[in-house]
Amino acid sequence: MRVVIIGSGNVATHIAKALNEVNIKVSQVWSYHYENALLLAGQIDAIAIADLSQIDVTADLCLIAVKDDEIANVARVLKNFSGVIAHTSGSVSLDVFENLTKNYGVFYPLQTFSKDKNVDFSNIPLCVEANNPQTLDILKQLAHQLSTKVVEVNSEKRKILHLAAVFACNFTNHLYALADEVLKANQLDFDIIRPLITETANKVQNALPANVQTGPAIRNDNNTLIKHEELLIKQPEMLQIYRLLSNSIKKTR
Amino acid sequence: MRVVIIGSGNVATHIAKALNEVNIKVSQVWSYHYENALLLAGQIDAIAIADLSQIDVTADLCLIAVKDDEIANVARVLKNFSGVIAHTSGSVSLDVFENLTKNYGVFYPLQTFSKDKNVDFSNIPLCVEANNPQTLDILKQLAHQLSTKVVEVNSEKRKILHLAAVFACNFTNHLYALADEVLKANQLDFDIIRPLITETANKVQNALPANVQTGPAIRNDNNTLIKHEELLIKQPEMLQIYRLLSNSIKKTR
Repeated sequence: MRVVIIGSGNVATHIAKALNEVNIKVSQVWSYHYENALLLAGQIDAIAIADLSQIDVTADLCLIAVKDDEIANVARVLKNFSGVIAHTSGSVSLDVFENLTKNYGVFYPLQTFSKDKNVDFSNIPLCVEANNPQTLDILKQLAHQLSTKVVEVNSEKRKILHLAAVFACNFTNHLYALADEVLKANQLDFDIIRPLITETANKVQNALPANVQTGPAIRNDNNTLIKHEELLIKQPEMLQIYRLLSNSIKKTR
Repeated sequence: MRVVIIGSGNVATHIAKALNEVNIKVSQVWSYHYENALLLAGQIDAIAIADLSQIDVTADLCLIAVKDDEIANVARVLKNFSGVIAHTSGSVSLDVFENLTKNYGVFYPLQTFSKDKNVDFSNIPLCVEANNPQTLDILKQLAHQLSTKVVEVNSEKRKILHLAAVFACNFTNHLYALADEVLKANQLDFDIIRPLITETANKVQNALPANVQTGPAIRNDNNTLIKHEELLIKQPEMLQIYRLLSNSIKKTR
């Protein structure tokens, strides 16, 4: 199997490296910025191409991992590509490829990727979808070589997964950042709450979050809630977040 | 050293067990509900007492791990206790013991405790504070036997730590719960986002959260933000949380 990767961001990079590790050949890399394509290609013994017209049209799969708005534009110039074309986005429908190519699908890894941090792909849910059974099989087979968690998810449910991921990952990370802001303003180091962050994530690995909620809001400990609001009196935005989330927790009591 | 534990909730239970594990004698346990005291005492070879007047006044330390509002009430009936009295709360000032006893302090573990989940105490930051150097030494020595992370923190900074913990732990867990709600409403299982939750927490163990923020808000990907808001149109509270946190993330760009 030969794969062409379109994109050089976090998702493109991590997928390309994961494929390379299980000896699936990534033959070419294209990126809007040629230097980035060169950089990624160099790490996985692939060839960086400067122009999409240079794409190896006989490769088995072309994975498009670019910004959501650019997926259709890329697909439009891959008319001569004979293999499967798939994108890696959580929120773009399968239909984006309609009338642009024959065999197409989605290959969405439900994970957060950062530039300098390696991740173990074997544990990442890979959500696949395709416009016909043969294409679905190809994507599934590929996914199974990377991960033990392969799930067939349609476009509608994938959007829901992506939304849930925003709450559980992006918003969560922002709350870590707000905690860091509070600590910094008081000359306290973020390091002191790192074990708490780990344990909070660990707790829900074997339980549902609603069943392990702790803190002043779920205890209806209004004295503490008022004290905390007083501490935030000069940070109206954080105060608003504090109130909204505390009230939302209280409603689950 | 002999320790008396007042309380039988999550904090009392986990501290009592941790002390027992490093062979520090917990001689007695008292709780508002005698049956709970019996249950905890039975696990650590201690004696459950039904009345606070039965307290061993010659013990070295009395740890009060009850509701914040009850700490002073408990201390008031411990007049004859000759050892150190300390509470375990994040948000109650050291002054709560003023004029009630001679040697007093705070012994605050910065962690989230759940009933059925064991935690490794060696990694938990223990925040200590006392009204005199001798008492501080006693609490520090005890803390060092349980954890490698012992920090002297005054009441003001402890309150800040507690506030930061609400953001990084309690609110974070609630966001997991909201994600679960979205998934459940669409017949998707929480299990699919568990690896994402783990990775999100892992990422900030060696980085600051503001430096590893991902997702549509930090990318200013307004198309996705609008799509997500549309998915939440029938859940006004979640929509409000989505907007507030997304806007808050955007401001950090």
